[in-house]
Amino acid sequence: MTAAFADLDGFRNLLAAAPGPVPEAAEGARARDGMLTKPPGSLGRLEELAIWYAGWRGAARPRLEAPQILIFAGNHGVTAQGISAFPAEVTAQMVGNFAGGGAAINQLAQLIGARLQVHALSLEVPTADFTTGPAMRMDELVTALQTGWEAVDPKADLLVTGEMGIGNTTVAAALACALFGGPAGDWVGRGTGLDDAGLARKAAAVRAGVTLHAAALGDPLEVLRCLGGRELAAMAGAIAAARAHRIPVILDGFICCAAAAVLARAMPGALDHCVAGHLSAEGAHGRLLDALGKVPLLDLGLRLGEGSGAALAIGVLQGAVACHSGMATFGEAGVSAG
Amino acid sequence: MTAAFADLDGFRNLLAAAPGPVPEAAEGARARDGMLTKPPGSLGRLEELAIWYAGWRGAARPRLEAPQILIFAGNHGVTAQGISAFPAEVTAQMVGNFAGGGAAINQLAQLIGARLQVHALSLEVPTADFTTGPAMRMDELVTALQTGWEAVDPKADLLVTGEMGIGNTTVAAALACALFGGPAGDWVGRGTGLDDAGLARKAAAVRAGVTLHAAALGDPLEVLRCLGGRELAAMAGAIAAARAHRIPVILDGFICCAAAAVLARAMPGALDHCVAGHLSAEGAHGRLLDALGKVPLLDLGLRLGEGSGAALAIGVLQGAVACHSGMATFGEAGVSAG
Repeated sequence: MTAAFADLDGFRNLLAAAPGPVPEAAEGARARDGMLTKPPGSLGRLEELAIWYAGWRGAARPRLEAPQILIFAGNHGVTAQGISAFPAEVTAQMVGNFAGGGAAINQLAQLIGARLQVHALSLEVPTADFTTGPAMRMDELVTALQTGWEAVDPKADLLVTGEMGIGNTTVAAALACALFGGPAGDWVGRGTGLDDAGLARKAAAVRAGVTLHAAALGDPLEVLRCLGGRELAAMAGAIAAARAHRIPVILDGFICCAAAAVLARAMPGALDHCVAGHLSAEGAHGRLLDALGKVPLLDLGLRLGEGSGAALAIGVLQGAVACHSGMATFGEAGVSAG
Repeated sequence: MTAAFADLDGFRNLLAAAPGPVPEAAEGARARDGMLTKPPGSLGRLEELAIWYAGWRGAARPRLEAPQILIFAGNHGVTAQGISAFPAEVTAQMVGNFAGGGAAINQLAQLIGARLQVHALSLEVPTADFTTGPAMRMDELVTALQTGWEAVDPKADLLVTGEMGIGNTTVAAALACALFGGPAGDWVGRGTGLDDAGLARKAAAVRAGVTLHAAALGDPLEVLRCLGGRELAAMAGAIAAARAHRIPVILDGFICCAAAAVLARAMPGALDHCVAGHLSAEGAHGRLLDALGKVPLLDLGLRLGEGSGAALAIGVLQGAVACHSGMATFGEAGVSAG
């Protein structure tokens, strides 16, 4: 199989050429919604979700039957700065746990009926410490973007991207800080459970990285190369590929949204095919969602990653689509429309 | 089959004798939660939900496999006061729609794998208009409580109660106002879509009812008789029966919570086996949840009734239980615990 793009310019071109939703399908869904046996608007966000999903799937009465969950794992040189409560070897151990079916996301994928695939990206070669140089070479960035892009099943009808990578809330904070500005302290949180001293080291690392790579700030994809990580680049690649296939995406927490933010800053509207699955307990996720203009579906205090919050939100979208496409109209059911 | 109780005193005795959760099961679940392959607390509310569910089911590693959804339908004399946007015949029409599988709750029940049963309670004989007299005679109240109690399957492992009844947000507002006090206007909302004049009539009806039945206010079950409705009494009976069987309950919106509030006011802790499924868009639901001390799992702007918000929240609880009972421990997976 040839890759959809060979270099970063190829990826930029695909981003620029991304399709939109199908207006006729969204309009058809809106008309159908108004005829269903319920008071107008009484299904709240489920109605807007179903119409949004219908538009992207190009069907006024869509089905949601083949959700795909992709987990990308990577390791990060910035862990040398003492910014995580867990040692880096946990990344590979958790990849083993995914393979063995023992992680949270395995249980959620099974519950929901989603296909789960895990891609470990060169775990034995962490990215460079971004406080001392660019995290990735250009070829490493392109390979990670390609891995994400090619991992998306064109036959899927929904995508969730999750991640595993000790140190990657620091990477996500650095990306968010570089993409949206503001003090480093605004973008860091406690990750898997940092103490106050660790949190201060994390903010210092983010500050150092954004300062060192100031020349990259005008180009979101160069920001991703200098401050990102392989699993974040792969998530960005997968989210972009989903758009190319008109596959709607449910965004997970802080790290997923930081990866997605690269696309949003690179091309306005690049995340129109995405909804925010949940508000994470990781400190800056709410700020990041605000910057992306996304309102989360769930707010349950999760901060695990692995796509877990987004996977849980699949159930909400399944409910929205099931009601929309399965309910009777007033005419069909012989119910007075008020 | 003989009814579990023959009169209101029998029901009061069962309420007073209600069992609590099994402490050993909850403690076992809490210990297991601490060993699972995730940073401590990183599944947020899912962890507390799983432990709560484990306690009520009496198993440290419980399963959730037989959710039951009960819909009760009733008609209300207070519709004579012009307090609904839909005519009363819609109650029976929607019962037909439930039977035909065309309503929102049918789609959600199927999606979740829940058993759905609908009980229409004497739709042809609306309760009396509570602005002119007690809504129900004592025998009508007891029959409705019995219907709800007997409808609960003792083999179910989760219960959702929903309702259908044109006019029943007015009934729920009257109950809430009588049980918790405050101005009538604080407890009324737009229901299925009332205009400003309808909303004013609704507040006036609630005010008139609570004033007329002032002598009932000291006894929550007498409040239910004077201001309630058959489907609300049946929901209260079902929620009480679930407690007797140690079946956890997910509460639905404003009307379900008003019915449940009768139990909470009749016996402190009567709703310990219940979680709030969602925050409804019906105006006073947040106030009512605050009064009950419940934090909703979802906030998606639903205001349909039928148990729809609670049914959607079943997915969250299923996810919590699946993670809790299915995940590997650090030891099993060979993952460093940090």
